[in-house]
Amino acid sequence: MSRLLLLALSLPFIAQAQVNQDSITIKKMADEIMTNGKAYDLLRELTKKIGGRLAGSPQQQNAAIWGKRNMEAFNPDKVFMQPCKTPNWQRGGKDFAAIVGLDGKATTQKLEVLALGNSLGSNGLIEADVLAVANFDELEKRKDEVKGKIVYFNSEFDPTYIQTFKAYGASGVYRRTGASRAAKYGAVGVMIHSLSTAPDNAPHTGTMVYDETLPKIPAVALGPNDAKALYAMAKKGTVRVQMQTYGFFLPDADENNVVAELKGTEHPEEIITIGGHLDSWDVNEGAHDDGAGIVQTMEVLRTMKALNYQPKHTIRFVLFANEENGGKGGAKYAELAKLNKEKHILALESDAGGFTPRGIGVTCTPAQFAKFQQWTPLLKPYGTEVNTGGGGADIGHLTGYDKTIVMSSLSPDSQRYFDLHHAKTDVFENVNKRELLLGAVNIAAFIYLVDQYGVN
Amino acid sequence: MSRLLLLALSLPFIAQAQVNQDSITIKKMADEIMTNGKAYDLLRELTKKIGGRLAGSPQQQNAAIWGKRNMEAFNPDKVFMQPCKTPNWQRGGKDFAAIVGLDGKATTQKLEVLALGNSLGSNGLIEADVLAVANFDELEKRKDEVKGKIVYFNSEFDPTYIQTFKAYGASGVYRRTGASRAAKYGAVGVMIHSLSTAPDNAPHTGTMVYDETLPKIPAVALGPNDAKALYAMAKKGTVRVQMQTYGFFLPDADENNVVAELKGTEHPEEIITIGGHLDSWDVNEGAHDDGAGIVQTMEVLRTMKALNYQPKHTIRFVLFANEENGGKGGAKYAELAKLNKEKHILALESDAGGFTPRGIGVTCTPAQFAKFQQWTPLLKPYGTEVNTGGGGADIGHLTGYDKTIVMSSLSPDSQRYFDLHHAKTDVFENVNKRELLLGAVNIAAFIYLVDQYGVN
Repeated sequence: MSRLLLLALSLPFIAQAQVNQDSITIKKMADEIMTNGKAYDLLRELTKKIGGRLAGSPQQQNAAIWGKRNMEAFNPDKVFMQPCKTPNWQRGGKDFAAIVGLDGKATTQKLEVLALGNSLGSNGLIEADVLAVANFDELEKRKDEVKGKIVYFNSEFDPTYIQTFKAYGASGVYRRTGASRAAKYGAVGVMIHSLSTAPDNAPHTGTMVYDETLPKIPAVALGPNDAKALYAMAKKGTVRVQMQTYGFFLPDADENNVVAELKGTEHPEEIITIGGHLDSWDVNEGAHDDGAGIVQTMEVLRTMKALNYQPKHTIRFVLFANEENGGKGGAKYAELAKLNKEKHILALESDAGGFTPRGIGVTCTPAQFAKFQQWTPLLKPYGTEVNTGGGGADIGHLTGYDKTIVMSSLSPDSQRYFDLHHAKTDVFENVNKRELLLGAVNIAAFIYLVDQYGVN
Repeated sequence: MSRLLLLALSLPFIAQAQVNQDSITIKKMADEIMTNGKAYDLLRELTKKIGGRLAGSPQQQNAAIWGKRNMEAFNPDKVFMQPCKTPNWQRGGKDFAAIVGLDGKATTQKLEVLALGNSLGSNGLIEADVLAVANFDELEKRKDEVKGKIVYFNSEFDPTYIQTFKAYGASGVYRRTGASRAAKYGAVGVMIHSLSTAPDNAPHTGTMVYDETLPKIPAVALGPNDAKALYAMAKKGTVRVQMQTYGFFLPDADENNVVAELKGTEHPEEIITIGGHLDSWDVNEGAHDDGAGIVQTMEVLRTMKALNYQPKHTIRFVLFANEENGGKGGAKYAELAKLNKEKHILALESDAGGFTPRGIGVTCTPAQFAKFQQWTPLLKPYGTEVNTGGGGADIGHLTGYDKTIVMSSLSPDSQRYFDLHHAKTDVFENVNKRELLLGAVNIAAFIYLVDQYGVN
């Protein structure tokens, strides 16, 4: 109560009575979600009945149908599909790698490995000596040694980053561009340390992109323990490895964004979008990435309808078709928004896992930030505060046609995300019910405040 | 940086240069812990090599020896044992309960069940009809129906409490006192809904206390799913159950607090104590409760020594012998502190799980709180802020002889704790390495600041 009082004293825009009314409404939403929330049960269905949902797969198509059916059951003003083309990458087989020689002596040590998404097949078994480098600087210094080798990048996370997304940013460049950086100097294959925080040996896949002007060599991620062992061996001697991958592309697939809408009562032409992405990698259930964002989006819709909330602005609940290996879902949504001359005021993405929520990130003007920050005392009882820096791969496309749209995102605690991100361990069992629901509570609360008070 | 600047502008006591120095020292501690931390490996040893550590068990005695040996290896100024007597409760057998009748018709439905800690055996199989009540109010209203029955208390958590410890507080009274409350009116046994947030059927044990003036009837916790099913059946009809427990007490056991000490260079007579408890329940590995607090305590000692930190005050690192079913470890520590006329200025307890840290709670004067709150900008990069309300069952005994001692505690995120608290699921695999280490970082940072600036 003292916090709310403090807020009221410092607020020029919102009267005390309104603050109290807002806290009561938010409490009702929170009670509804924590008591009757369906997000966890929906996530069980999505992960256990449908499973992994790589773009182009039957599972991904089933997930869209499932999302449409379930959102229709919550009875919004409308639900519609937005057809879009997505990449259709196929892993093609069971990726393989092994150490077969050390300083000229034969040895056999199988490595836990996954081909990176979009990586092409090796056309049979490749065998070569390893050139292990700490980073691109070392690669450039040793470029004359690269030809004919398999390059290993030691893209291990820096554990001193408290926010693990910063470590992901620093190491992620090796996954995305390492293959072509090494191919430029004649490498025949690339291995990276999985982008992982887990004290285990599960390899983590994830998207990579070829430079079209260079040979497209196969690229794999090693399990963390195997990667450390390989790197230690390669620093002391000559390590020879074999690898085989099978990746290829089928023609682009027909997928769908699924959009539910609550029509605004006062500003129906102004749109608030919230969403996550339906697709996942093939090796797991996509429970945190991004089943969590999908079911939180659906939960906010369910809750607004259950409480008979009539928004002032139009609110869209979007299950984006494809984020992981192409970003085609968000691109299609933005393309149609531009085509239909839609006015979007804010978009929020939940795509950082279903962990306990810590913040609502916003990318906006300083004046808007000052406004949003005033809502922190209303959010704090549910675990979050408003911070600078929000957005996401799906909603980000919207800024391509209108830079005034506020980009926002749910920021869950980041400590566990990269234990399982893109690894086989991203399964339903690793999602906590209360943490997942609490994320939905904070999205609902923030979107309610945006709807009540706008963004300016 | 802007946060630190803001802090400096508002601080009368600490100069800018010092704030920067503090942030540098704290970053060094954090880097050391996140990079070279041993807490996770120590926890693996404690949970996997030693296992569950009920007071009086050989495992608990081994754990003290293990703790002493490992703290000695970190080379503090001294390590010593504080012998103490603890209860020696024995579960005695595999607790049993089943539904055997519904509205007079025989049926058989086994129930997942654990006797509550300190509960006595049933002396054979008990069979009786169930009186299911929502709470003590309903028990009082229906006291005439109690005689000869097994009373079920629906002590399910209220999911709308965002801080799960509040739900534990509200429901915990049924575990602690339910048996005697029902025995007063002639009940022959008691069942409660496990104090659990988990969407599973694992029963949760935990301590209970008999009113010595009343019959000591057996008390058990049902798995959450079984509890809900039983309650639903009992509201509609007459449910007959069987139960059998085997609990008894051996003579009090000889256990030890383990204390490591770094001698203060400026105020050696002023003591700062940090700690957790070595004992656990018998049905799990005591990984979060309180293996986490134990290894975080050891980690802070290790880090201070690794960085060659010379504290101004004397710092004690205490592995308390017995918290769960008697609180004898903390009682002994306080008894000796009083006897030896020790001057304690602050004690910090970590006994809320090894989850991602959210706050440092403090119980102190308003002036002290104002001082501690100034440190929030230094802690926030590592996830915590200083909040009112700190303490714990072990350190709490110290206030019995000196009410001026500041009580503090690490407050980890509470969403997952009661999924596994006192259940078989409290095992090493459910502890996250980074979350555990980050707890140690925040304890180290706060204790460093207390040591540098005192408590007044």
